[in-house]
Amino acid sequence: MSGGTIYGLGLGPGDPELMSVKAHRLLRETRHVAFFRKAGRKGQARQIVEGLLREDVIEVPMEYPVTTEIPLTDPRYNQTLAAFYAECVDKLRALVEAGIDVVVLCEGDPFFYGSFMHLHARLVADVTVEVVPAITGMSGAWTATGQPVTWGDDVMCVLMGTLDEDTLTDHMTRADALVVMKIGRNFDKVCRALKSADRFADAWLVEYAQMPNQTVRKLAEAEGAVTPYFSIIIVHGQGRRP
Amino acid sequence: MSGGTIYGLGLGPGDPELMSVKAHRLLRETRHVAFFRKAGRKGQARQIVEGLLREDVIEVPMEYPVTTEIPLTDPRYNQTLAAFYAECVDKLRALVEAGIDVVVLCEGDPFFYGSFMHLHARLVADVTVEVVPAITGMSGAWTATGQPVTWGDDVMCVLMGTLDEDTLTDHMTRADALVVMKIGRNFDKVCRALKSADRFADAWLVEYAQMPNQTVRKLAEAEGAVTPYFSIIIVHGQGRRP
Ligand SMILES: C[S@@+](CC[C@H](N)C(=O)[O-])C[C@H]1O[C@@H](n2cnc3c(N)ncnc32)[C@H](O)[C@@H]1O
Ligand SMILES: C[S@@+](CC[C@H](N)C(=O)[O-])C[C@H]1O[C@@H](n2cnc3c(N)ncnc32)[C@H](O)[C@@H]1O
Repeated sequence: MSGGTIYGLGLGPGDPELMSVKAHRLLRETRHVAFFRKAGRKGQARQIVEGLLREDVIEVPMEYPVTTEIPLTDPRYNQTLAAFYAECVDKLRALVEAGIDVVVLCEGDPFFYGSFMHLHARLVADVTVEVVPAITGMSGAWTATGQPVTWGDDVMCVLMGTLDEDTLTDHMTRADALVVMKIGRNFDKVCRALKSADRFADAWLVEYAQMPNQTVRKLAEAEGAVTPYFSIIIVHGQGRRP
Repeated sequence: MSGGTIYGLGLGPGDPELMSVKAHRLLRETRHVAFFRKAGRKGQARQIVEGLLREDVIEVPMEYPVTTEIPLTDPRYNQTLAAFYAECVDKLRALVEAGIDVVVLCEGDPFFYGSFMHLHARLVADVTVEVVPAITGMSGAWTATGQPVTWGDDVMCVLMGTLDEDTLTDHMTRADALVVMKIGRNFDKVCRALKSADRFADAWLVEYAQMPNQTVRKLAEAEGAVTPYFSIIIVHGQGRRP
């Protein structure tokens, strides 16, 4: 290991005041900041740090290839992403080999379903990588509902909307508290699974948790709506409470 | 609602640099700080904020009654705790009624298996309570292992060591990624359940995550050891990764 360090920097759910003191310090100091974004967009992570970076910061945007037309199960989906991550890693590697530190911005906590993990896996063998944990989107979401998510010895289960309906229903039936992420076009399927598991009436939908455009409502009031990428469903546990 | 505000302030896993910018600001400003602790101890939460508080801060320690000899299932367990929380709430209510803001220190995230929730439930109807989310102990723990906890559409399950062995085994078999908390005297039972579910060999034990005395090792290397209150078992998911 020699050269610069790559920081996988968790930014938390969105409110800049909810990032850690450490993340804040590294952001103010760094000369190089890298981040994922969709082509033609500013990037959510980049948006969160607006106004915090040095005047002379060098930005390294990493633009996702368009994969919306390729089904998750098609091998071309993984191939396209693998080629993209390889390209990102080449860029970062060139910088660290020149002795440069790079902060990579991550939404929420980097090691929790994050894109940064795909860079981390490709770099960690021969580059110094430091990961800074952060408040997850789900913590932001349950805090926004104003109710504790788990009590006593509640079992909490985190599910992705991309799972098939039977798997969703099965876990929704067994766990006490539920968190569902990656909803988007899986919204109707997730609602059906919650109904089959008899959890629909107790579910909350939080969009843009801890961002300026946050919304919080019972899921039943949002049925049939179109949910954005940044949305999370929460079902609170009802465990032991003295 | 009138009078002061109660802040349920999440401190994160233990490293003061991992608290949020908002928590840091509120701690520097507050005149009144309340926190749970065991009788005769300084208190872990209080320890984390050492050196950050105002010189003229007024401390409100809330000392847990001793319940170690009462089984969880004995009604006296809940009665003892309920009386304790009622007493804490009386103290806090007297302050807010006098127009005073109080910051209540919380380990990790307040709404995730936290003690603060028992105060919140008793206050929220007629007192202004604001909850500041934080990095959970489990985020601190998986970051300490140096590996992502969940990939793709991994199912993550959070389990308390206080659950019975069959329930533990059942969930450990079905989920991809696992987090086990509240281990302590349940350590041997948790190890047996992980073995029955064939997850023992892949499990990690993290003690004092993100604290100065942090330890990280494969669970197999710790079998038979005595684990402290602040320990978490992590089994990483192995989901889709391009
Ligand atoms: C690729 S995962 C990244 C998770 C992130 N690393 C974390 O710790 O929360 C993206 C999903 O996280 C959820 N998410 C993350 N932050 C969110 C927020 N502030 N509000 C709502 N949903 C959020 C959404 O469900 C989204 O589909
Ligand atoms: C009452 S729960 C509180 C959880 C806390 N609210 C959170 O968000 O992590 C206490 C349990 O949390 C876990 N825990 C919390 N912080 C930890 C840390 N820094 N290191 C190890 N375990 C921790 C332990 O398993 C402990 O038994």
